[in-house]
Amino acid sequence: MGSYKELWEKLNLDLDAHESLLEVLGKFYGDIYLTQQGRLRGIEYLDFVISEIHGLRIKELQEAKNNGRKVIGTFCIFVPEELVLAAQAIQVGLCAGAETGRELAEQVLPRNTCALIKSFVGFKLSRLCPFIESCDLIVGETTCDGKKKAYEIFEQYVPLFVMEVPQMKRDADRELWKSEIYRFKSVLEDLTGSWITAESLAKGIKTVNRRRRVLQRLNELRKAVPAPISGRDALLVHQISFYDDPERFTNKISILCDELEKRISAKEGVVPEGTPRILLSGCPMAIPNWKLPYVIESSGAVVVVEESCVGTRNISHLVEENGKSVDDMIDNIVDRYMKIDCACFTPNRERLNNVVSLAKAYKVDGVIHYSLTFCQLYETEAFKIGRALEKEGIPFLSISTDYSMEDVEQLKNRVEAFVEMIRG
Amino acid sequence: MGSYKELWEKLNLDLDAHESLLEVLGKFYGDIYLTQQGRLRGIEYLDFVISEIHGLRIKELQEAKNNGRKVIGTFCIFVPEELVLAAQAIQVGLCAGAETGRELAEQVLPRNTCALIKSFVGFKLSRLCPFIESCDLIVGETTCDGKKKAYEIFEQYVPLFVMEVPQMKRDADRELWKSEIYRFKSVLEDLTGSWITAESLAKGIKTVNRRRRVLQRLNELRKAVPAPISGRDALLVHQISFYDDPERFTNKISILCDELEKRISAKEGVVPEGTPRILLSGCPMAIPNWKLPYVIESSGAVVVVEESCVGTRNISHLVEENGKSVDDMIDNIVDRYMKIDCACFTPNRERLNNVVSLAKAYKVDGVIHYSLTFCQLYETEAFKIGRALEKEGIPFLSISTDYSMEDVEQLKNRVEAFVEMIRG
Ligand code: SF4
Ligand code: SF4
Ligand code: SF4
Ligand code: SF4
Repeated sequence: MGSYKELWEKLNLDLDAHESLLEVLGKFYGDIYLTQQGRLRGIEYLDFVISEIHGLRIKELQEAKNNGRKVIGTFCIFVPEELVLAAQAIQVGLCAGAETGRELAEQVLPRNTCALIKSFVGFKLSRLCPFIESCDLIVGETTCDGKKKAYEIFEQYVPLFVMEVPQMKRDADRELWKSEIYRFKSVLEDLTGSWITAESLAKGIKTVNRRRRVLQRLNELRKAVPAPISGRDALLVHQISFYDDPERFTNKISILCDELEKRISAKEGVVPEGTPRILLSGCPMAIPNWKLPYVIESSGAVVVVEESCVGTRNISHLVEENGKSVDDMIDNIVDRYMKIDCACFTPNRERLNNVVSLAKAYKVDGVIHYSLTFCQLYETEAFKIGRALEKEGIPFLSISTDYSMEDVEQLKNRVEAFVEMIRG
Repeated sequence: MGSYKELWEKLNLDLDAHESLLEVLGKFYGDIYLTQQGRLRGIEYLDFVISEIHGLRIKELQEAKNNGRKVIGTFCIFVPEELVLAAQAIQVGLCAGAETGRELAEQVLPRNTCALIKSFVGFKLSRLCPFIESCDLIVGETTCDGKKKAYEIFEQYVPLFVMEVPQMKRDADRELWKSEIYRFKSVLEDLTGSWITAESLAKGIKTVNRRRRVLQRLNELRKAVPAPISGRDALLVHQISFYDDPERFTNKISILCDELEKRISAKEGVVPEGTPRILLSGCPMAIPNWKLPYVIESSGAVVVVEESCVGTRNISHLVEENGKSVDDMIDNIVDRYMKIDCACFTPNRERLNNVVSLAKAYKVDGVIHYSLTFCQLYETEAFKIGRALEKEGIPFLSISTDYSMEDVEQLKNRVEAFVEMIRG
């Protein structure tokens, strides 16, 4: 990827450190992804996107910027991309899944902060992420204490706008959230100089819904037995949905789904029938956080669905497409986003029901709950999820971990024992 | 306190464990409080309240309950006691400052939960707190991830009502908070069978303001040099304000203040002039969490003010007394509570300003910031407070700790070095 050096230089990346990062990433991807057997042809798209993640995609973003478009970075599925697209801007997910930069982050944040937060702060402080450096605006939200307070530090380094996500789901909360959406709309319009019109917003809603639909289709196909695609590849699809152009992504994944359908008709799978099927539930897994899926799938099980923001939580609901005016459409957007079953809400009983339903619909043999250490939201909900699954007689394993590789062996032991137990 | 055994039995306490708890508490209080030199006569009230904290006060609560009054437990200064009093109920603070019950709490909560939360859950699970057991209703709030999610577990064991505290301070937030106050009002009226009237609410507002005023007066007197009262005793006054009858408390502390004034006129202090003066800032310190004040005051310094919810944060603002109707008064209550500079708000710049102003007004020689480990709100703000104080040239030490005694020696070393440094 030598040809992008100039681009990275222009973005003021730390070139040497960035070079090493890409090397490590490449090797990591090779070990975890390219060694898989029986992958689909459509997966080439994923391999290509990953190999060009800091190259071609960044070049596209820079070209769009040269043509006057703005780039908006986000950390949470509460930020309504419909509005961003309607303002002719481009949205990219900035959640980071690597440990690089942790030491720098710990100089400005408490050690008791989750790995995801340390990662995005660390990436910024060590000038390693061309996505962050491409952003004209970064949008934060008040979903957890860690992020809410980290943004107060982060705003010294990036142009930041923070949205308030309410903590309950009553009328007053809906009103608060609606006022936040309108505030975001103004900020976007000021930034881009584009008015959000009924036409552009309708288009934005359709584009994001289409991406959600193709991901729903993918997940639907994963209900097949034997599993037609590995959990790692499916996770990657969800991860890439946060980075790539939404239209291209939708088309490519649609082709992948066609291929999957054929495979399913032929009763082919990536793993033999009888392989224990796992629902992975919990915190979002940002690229390249593939540790736990890798551990699970190299322990003789297969992940068939992710109950997470990089998974079902991001795609479960569509925005109604029946809105005529901008205000109608915003009402529909408000409704849709207030359905998200993030652990930031209390009491969030929906999530318990959803996990149980998913476990049944995907015919899983067990649920592995994954929390980032120090994420009080998901670490506490893990206890409730465990209890809900116990009532249903569904095996459950709760894991707290971070981005370091130190606990891989220990995780492997725990997961293997769990898979063993499921096999009975 | 043998004569209360029947009372405790009726409350279904674990009598043996409770007996040991009281013994430890008594010894702890003896070591930290009764050994102090030059205490005021009015302090006898504090000693008496503490010695009877699980006795006489509980008996009073039970008697009130027998007369039809309800007892409301709280964990946060956002719960408006004005309304509780107006509904003829009694409010008690339930924040707990002891490690007892931690093991039980950790069976239902993540280990990465702050000591305060583990403490109140642990006290409940081990049947040790006669205050919790006396409550007809416990009021939680969504101020931090830890509490917000712990309440979802806690509600299985106690009658619980959770108020949503917003995370910013704009109009929509004020509206949300106002709707919460009205919701609380209905809940109280349903529980007590008493309507909150303009008359009863005016009285409630006056009672709570009077208590705030006497605590403001106490703090005002602590600006004197040499310090007329120890930080430990002053903290205890603030702590007891959450437990004792508000009228009695106000009268007793008023007498204590008269005595302090005399002492100040006579230029007498509890410590020699020149003793380094410390502002202690951060998380609330619930009874019997006296570890850090004790460490500081046995290192040759004196705490002259607590920037905390058991301190200035709880008393800084009065509710305007000019309201005529219930709705007017509720508006005044909303305004007052929205001024609280808790770290649960973002960006909470007020707190930085307040800490700097307090440091100057109390002529402190240094600020010690205190966070409970895993409290992401205060642990992150500590970085910002440190930076704000650095700009002012005010020495700063940041400490994260919990309720265990294991780190006392290490804390002593750090605090002594800090005091040494201040002395120059
Ligand atoms: S887990 Fe919650 S806060 Fe995190 S990205 Fe998902 S919706 Fe946002
Ligand atoms: S994993 Fe948890 S603590 Fe970390 S950013 Fe997400 S919600 Fe916050
Ligand atoms: S620190 Fe904040 S959440 Fe805790 S008691 Fe004080 S106001 Fe409430
Ligand atoms: S100390 Fe912090 S984490 Fe603990 S209850 Fe208070 S605000 Fe929450």
